[in-house]
Amino acid sequence: MNPSEYPLGEPIAAIATALAPAALGVIRVSGNDSVRLLSACFSRGEALRAAPGNTLVHGWILGENGTADRIDEVMVAAYRSPKSFTGEEAAEITCHGGTATVLAVYRRLLAAGFREAERGEFAFRAFANGKTDLLRAEAIREIIGAQTETALSHAANRLAGDLSAEIRRVKESIIRARAAIGVEIEYPEEEDAESGAFDDSLVREALQALARLRDTWAAERLLQDGARVVLAGRTNAGKSSFFNTLLKEDRAIVSDVPGTTRDWLESTADFSGIPVRLFDTAGMRETGDAIEAEGVNRSRLLASEADLILYLVDSSEGLDAGDRAFLSDAARDGTPAVLVWNKDDRSDSKPLPSPLPTGARAAVRTSAKRGTGVSELVRQAAGILLEGTGGGPSGKAGQAVRAPALGSERQKRDVAAACESLEHAVSAAAAGFPMDAIEEDLSNALDHLASITGEVSGADVLDAVFSGFCVGK
Amino acid sequence: MNPSEYPLGEPIAAIATALAPAALGVIRVSGNDSVRLLSACFSRGEALRAAPGNTLVHGWILGENGTADRIDEVMVAAYRSPKSFTGEEAAEITCHGGTATVLAVYRRLLAAGFREAERGEFAFRAFANGKTDLLRAEAIREIIGAQTETALSHAANRLAGDLSAEIRRVKESIIRARAAIGVEIEYPEEEDAESGAFDDSLVREALQALARLRDTWAAERLLQDGARVVLAGRTNAGKSSFFNTLLKEDRAIVSDVPGTTRDWLESTADFSGIPVRLFDTAGMRETGDAIEAEGVNRSRLLASEADLILYLVDSSEGLDAGDRAFLSDAARDGTPAVLVWNKDDRSDSKPLPSPLPTGARAAVRTSAKRGTGVSELVRQAAGILLEGTGGGPSGKAGQAVRAPALGSERQKRDVAAACESLEHAVSAAAAGFPMDAIEEDLSNALDHLASITGEVSGADVLDAVFSGFCVGK
Repeated sequence: MNPSEYPLGEPIAAIATALAPAALGVIRVSGNDSVRLLSACFSRGEALRAAPGNTLVHGWILGENGTADRIDEVMVAAYRSPKSFTGEEAAEITCHGGTATVLAVYRRLLAAGFREAERGEFAFRAFANGKTDLLRAEAIREIIGAQTETALSHAANRLAGDLSAEIRRVKESIIRARAAIGVEIEYPEEEDAESGAFDDSLVREALQALARLRDTWAAERLLQDGARVVLAGRTNAGKSSFFNTLLKEDRAIVSDVPGTTRDWLESTADFSGIPVRLFDTAGMRETGDAIEAEGVNRSRLLASEADLILYLVDSSEGLDAGDRAFLSDAARDGTPAVLVWNKDDRSDSKPLPSPLPTGARAAVRTSAKRGTGVSELVRQAAGILLEGTGGGPSGKAGQAVRAPALGSERQKRDVAAACESLEHAVSAAAAGFPMDAIEEDLSNALDHLASITGEVSGADVLDAVFSGFCVGK
Repeated sequence: MNPSEYPLGEPIAAIATALAPAALGVIRVSGNDSVRLLSACFSRGEALRAAPGNTLVHGWILGENGTADRIDEVMVAAYRSPKSFTGEEAAEITCHGGTATVLAVYRRLLAAGFREAERGEFAFRAFANGKTDLLRAEAIREIIGAQTETALSHAANRLAGDLSAEIRRVKESIIRARAAIGVEIEYPEEEDAESGAFDDSLVREALQALARLRDTWAAERLLQDGARVVLAGRTNAGKSSFFNTLLKEDRAIVSDVPGTTRDWLESTADFSGIPVRLFDTAGMRETGDAIEAEGVNRSRLLASEADLILYLVDSSEGLDAGDRAFLSDAARDGTPAVLVWNKDDRSDSKPLPSPLPTGARAAVRTSAKRGTGVSELVRQAAGILLEGTGGGPSGKAGQAVRAPALGSERQKRDVAAACESLEHAVSAAAAGFPMDAIEEDLSNALDHLASITGEVSGADVLDAVFSGFCVGK
């Protein structure tokens, strides 16, 4: 079923937590009469039916045979309409987190009359019942998928409504501008009736705000999708230990991707808020010339698909022709590289080459052994990655108080379209077009903004947004 | 730290749900002042501090910079002492279920003053604060690890206290018997003072109840640990499709174990409540004689480690010498086998051999194609597995109303020891031993029963029980 066709009110159930052994698991239900329906398989049905909203009731989920057939001891959080996530009567059942336990409770609920929820059905109901707009619904999806704390924090601001408020503010400016035109059209003789007299300051202001928003997306997308960073360099440059240092340095989620059968190592790291997939071909070059050559080929292949290369050099050896060739190849591919002047702890460490070799956008002295220079490298790398998005090396990622930013490609498309309409309105006004033409541009811009928040959205937009959710949300 | 040394009251936090992307995640906290501590990083701190027990408060988890630094929108379930799982002041924070989200909320709580909980620390506090006995604490661990609905249901009954009540009932009988002896010892002249006059009916009754409990463990252990079942038979017997039919038939959790690099297939299935690891060497015998021979060897190896063999024969071909040899080898190893007379749908299907070949404990006609006979086979297989535990072919697994049963090896040891003491008391009484000897036996039995429930348990017992828990429970 397409999300836009999800019926409202039907009692639905979904397992809302990850299905793997844990202390607790949560199953959520929503819909008309859902608390009463749940109470039929609950040991304290009467207490549950009488429970006010936002209270917890302790009891047992019972099987078909009632108390002779206990499934699990649970806490039920009861929600009353409209004070729930969906706006409907709803409940969350917290049971023990065994896989069989969660499944047994869930099956019992289905037997009791709940239907399996579709993906995004809870969020769709929240939207359809006016509990959230599309921007905030998308922010929930973002939050669940966030890979770094920075990405999470940006999404949390959107969930809190900062972007919705910004869009509302812009809309109000445009509405006021349009109202002024309306006056002109209705009473053209009353005042200066020339179209050239249209005061476009409100429109310009709206355009400026929207253009700023539009330009936030590239950096936000980087926070969501992340970047591929490849560690390259000669065998003896110390890549393996550097790789490990980099992963240790990183305070956020770091996990080795299983699969030792691959020809490279891959891990995830947090580069100043950017989720980074870090590739290293280490382990390839320990034995034999053929394998070594193969390893270098793999490095080149990985590098050609990278967003950034960290090129390690043993600072006691310095650059050789192979290093310079690798870096200038990368430059030709358009892949930025940072020269990592490693083993800086050695007494025979050479100074950084000056000027930097072709292809190296920056250089950082590091010692994997002592762990020095690594934070600086991460900062530089994040800056270069953000620069590629127009986000600038200072980066929006690190700012404490942030201006609202966009959270999805869909939002970007609508904001960009609204910008175009406003740009058109400004040129039309400057060119002395009739007022109703300008009014149409402003109305188009408003339509795009209404689509962003979901005030007026086609089924295709709703389907695209809500089908991206997991089941249970 | 050993669980028996866990300090009570310190504010602790743990991620309680599985850490993988999902709609929701839950972090639980417990300890003195834990709600106030939590309120310091909560957007509606005052509302939370004022919240009565068993209510829900909606708000945001905030970072160090307060509202400028939102982490996630959450629901907090507030619990007031003693009405909580641990008996302490406690809370459960339900946040969005992204990995980064759950970790960020958890880290924030640690920064706010909560300590990372040790494994089983919540359950230990529940025990130490008198909210649960050891039997019910062990049942929680069982519930989380349960692999089938039957295993879950047995554990749920123990969590509900049926076993605790049974132990209490037995203890009361023994205490009454001991009190009667006390009277005899104190006033030996008053009535018939011969020790032979001791009425052992209460003790015999207690012994009977305990012996029944002791004998439940083998079948319960089978429900917890499961059994290894191997599918064997010639290449053309239809093992692969039978394997698939078996897995489809099964309504409970079925998952393929990843690892196609293995030389056999392994899946889990539910045989009338017994979690079964099902092995099939299918896929091994498609090409060449050498590989075929290797496949047969693997079958034999797997079969030698099995609890039960399902031996498939193409009923249109009937038994050959190799089949008979395999089955009699199994019988020599002491591994029971069921003869699966497969492809029963074929018109040239032969009748079942009579008598059954050596080693076949039972025979079932099946058609993997039509799916017939499979339920019957599963029932037979479960019966034979239960028989091996003394549980008998009718099986305790399927009974609607069940007598209390044991849930752990530890419980079994104590019950068996209590049985021995009571048996000794009965023989001592019969042999005319002095009353104080009998009284000592009864006291010993009571000590073992006190250890089971945790009324009097050494640190070693507590450590063994609670270190088996996961973190967050």
